Parts: sequence; structure tokens; C-alpha cells
Amino acid sequence: MPTLYHHPMSAASRFIRLVLSEYDMEADLIEERTWEQRRDFLALNPAATLPVYVDDSLHAICGAGVVAEFIDENFGVFKRDMRLLPDESLQRAEVRRLVDWFLIKMEQDVTRYLVRERVFKLLMPKENGGGAPDSKALRTARANIRQHMRYLDWLAANRNWLAGEKLTYADFAAAGALSTLDYLGEIKWGETAHAKDWYQRIKSRPCMRPLLGDRVSRISPVSHYADLDF
Amino acid sequence: MPTLYHHPMSAASRFIRLVLSEYDMEADLIEERTWEQRRDFLALNPAATLPVYVDDSLHAICGAGVVAEFIDENFGVFKRDMRLLPDESLQRAEVRRLVDWFLIKMEQDVTRYLVRERVFKLLMPKENGGGAPDSKALRTARANIRQHMRYLDWLAANRNWLAGEKLTYADFAAAGALSTLDYLGEIKWGETAHAKDWYQRIKSRPCMRPLLGDRVSRISPVSHYADLDF
Repeated sequence: MPTLYHHPMSAASRFIRLVLSEYDMEADLIEERTWEQRRDFLALNPAATLPVYVDDSLHAICGAGVVAEFIDENFGVFKRDMRLLPDESLQRAEVRRLVDWFLIKMEQDVTRYLVRERVFKLLMPKENGGGAPDSKALRTARANIRQHMRYLDWLAANRNWLAGEKLTYADFAAAGALSTLDYLGEIKWGETAHAKDWYQRIKSRPCMRPLLGDRVSRISPVSHYADLDF
Repeated sequence: MPTLYHHPMSAASRFIRLVLSEYDMEADLIEERTWEQRRDFLALNPAATLPVYVDDSLHAICGAGVVAEFIDENFGVFKRDMRLLPDESLQRAEVRRLVDWFLIKMEQDVTRYLVRERVFKLLMPKENGGGAPDSKALRTARANIRQHMRYLDWLAANRNWLAGEKLTYADFAAAGALSTLDYLGEIKWGETAHAKDWYQRIKSRPCMRPLLGDRVSRISPVSHYADLDF
């Protein structure tokens, strides 16, 4: 069986877990703490990023965007109406733009700060950067999150799913990021009704269930984290 | 004719300019100063990243990775032996991994610091963050560059081109990043002979010529910047 190196607080890992589950593909999950710089993990992926997908022939595919393209080329292409990357080139470009938006831009502006300061620093030894959260980093992230939520709300108000008529990778990339932030109680759902409606629809899909059961040591999710009606 | 919004000190823009030129595709170049947050540019790409490729039907394709996939699907696929993204899925994954390495990881570790501190801050008004370079950011970037150069050297020593036997997007992504840093004189070529040999080969390709003629206001390139024998 393939293996997925992931972390429950990695938005990019969540994206790939959702895609695998949506396509009924199984994989053994291995939780990786990238800051430990494990030699065997660096041999798989010298960039030390998550997720890494290791296929049945032990080839390592590194990084969410690369794994998503690999899955599309080898499995998605046979899914017809259920394919999560559209057939048409401009639509593919729009899906990819949004995947990058949620997994690169939102990661840089928001997610990495909140996850690092609130979760990873609790788990890291002091010599690797562990310790108390940096309040300036938290403030920056919380200022940026409002802009990102407004954009998500605009997409959800103007389109059926985030990239257009159909459910695509864009929705699962967004769900990966949003569910991570929601675990930490960082999202004010009351301010963005369309985004909330979209998240309710995606949250009720069976592929979301394993993620809603995720627990990270030393930090519990907000009370509404797994509720479909939040 | 298509339009490419770019900046001469954007490694990702250079990557796409090289690919367009290698495929003999023409585009009007528009230099964009993203920190100005021009309303018309944000309407094209709300992420405010470069490059943006606007095709003949005025569709905007945003971000180097997305543009590269779009070009491959619409033009590269007809190039047979000259195609810069291989046909085989695992090889495609390796090319994409390296494109992300040079345009995301190296950008985050090295390029954005050096370009921002040494170039953009000279061009930005003070209220947008302009001013004297931050010496701590420069030190961080210069420490990181050595690791990146060692990895490039390893790739160049063990493979004909960076992703394997054939010239691919990986080489042009690396050339986009390396030529930006070389303009600024930040690369010590004497320490990495295999990387130097690889760069000499790519530098002598006709597609590199326009980039070697690039000049940025208020900062001149190092003397060897355009020399094929450096």
C-alpha cells in the first residue's frame, strides 16, 4: 500500500488526505515532525516539506502540488465526472491558481504563523525553536486571515464550488487550510456567511470524517470543530 | 499577442521568459512593480504575484507553476523531443519537485531576501517599506545560499541536466533563480564546479540572451553577469 508522510496540522497534508479519500485510495499514514529533520525523511524529501506520497514501487512524490498532479495523471484521469482537476486547460489553470492561493499564499500569510506559534512551538524542544508563542507573529496572521476569509466568501458567493460549477482540487486545498485554522478556533464564521455555507457542504462529505477526528497532543480543537452544524 | 507581466528581478518571471523563448513563443513584456499594488494588476491576479501570462483571449494565467502547466498543455505537448515537461508521470513529478525547489524553497530561503533588501528597497518609497537593507535578512540569505548551491552542485554532478538525461523546466526554473542571484554577484562560482559547468551550458543558449541584457535601475550587474566564460 502507498504511504503518506503527513502532519495533522499541515494544511497541505490535509489536502492530499482529502483527495485520496474522495478517490477511495488507501494509504498508510505516517506522522512526521519535520523540525526533527529525520535523516530517513530528508532522504525522501530534501526540502523537508509535507506531504510526501510514497507509491507501491517506493517512489517518493514530494509536495502537495506535485502529489496532486501525480494523482490526477494516474487516477483522476479515469474518474470522468468525479475528476477533481477539470479537462479544460483554462479551468485547470483556475483550479491550480486557487490551490496555490490556499496552500502557498494563505500558508505564508496566515497558516504557518498560527500553526508554528500555537502548536509546533509546544512540541519542539527549546533548541529547535520551541517555547512561548511570538505575539507579533500571531497579530500579523490574525490581521491577514480576515482578508483571506473575505476572498473565500467572495468565491463562495459567486460560484457553486470555489473554482466554478464543479467540485475540484481548489475546494479540498481550501478545506485543508480552513480545517487546520478551524481546529485552532481562529475562524470567525459569523462574519462570512457564504464561506460558512461552502464549508458546511464540504465538511459533510465522508472524506472529511477522518480529519475531524484528528487530535494533536497538548492542544484540543475548539468545541465546534467536528460539528456539521456550527 | 500574449502579454507577460514580469519583473527583471523576479526569478519566477525569468523562468517563464526562458520557457517562452525556448519554445519560440512571443509575448509583450510589461514590467510590474508588485509593491505598488496597482488596481488593474490586482484585478488580473489578486495574489499580486509574478508572472502573469495573459493569452490572446485575455485570460490571465497567474503564477509561474500554473503558467508552466498551461504552456505545456497548449504548446509543449506538440514539441515532441523538445518538450520541457517529460511524458512519463514519475519524471514529471521530479521536474515539478525541482521547479518548486528553485521557485518556492530557494525563493523563501534566499532569493526574496536578497532581491527585496538589495533591489526593491531602493525602488520602493519609504511608506511601502523602502529604505536601507536589513543586514540580518542579508546574513540569513547568504547562509542559506551555500546549502542551495551545494544541492545544485550535487544535481549537476550526478545528472546530465538537473532532472535527468534531458533539458526540462527544472533547468529553466534554476536558471531563473541563479541568474537573478548572479546579477547581484551573490554566487561564488569557484566553490561549485559542477553547478558552474551546468550554468555555463544553460547560459550559452539563445533563450538566455534577453535576460543577460536586463538592467535594473539603480543597481548594475556584476561584471561577469553576461559573460559566457565567467
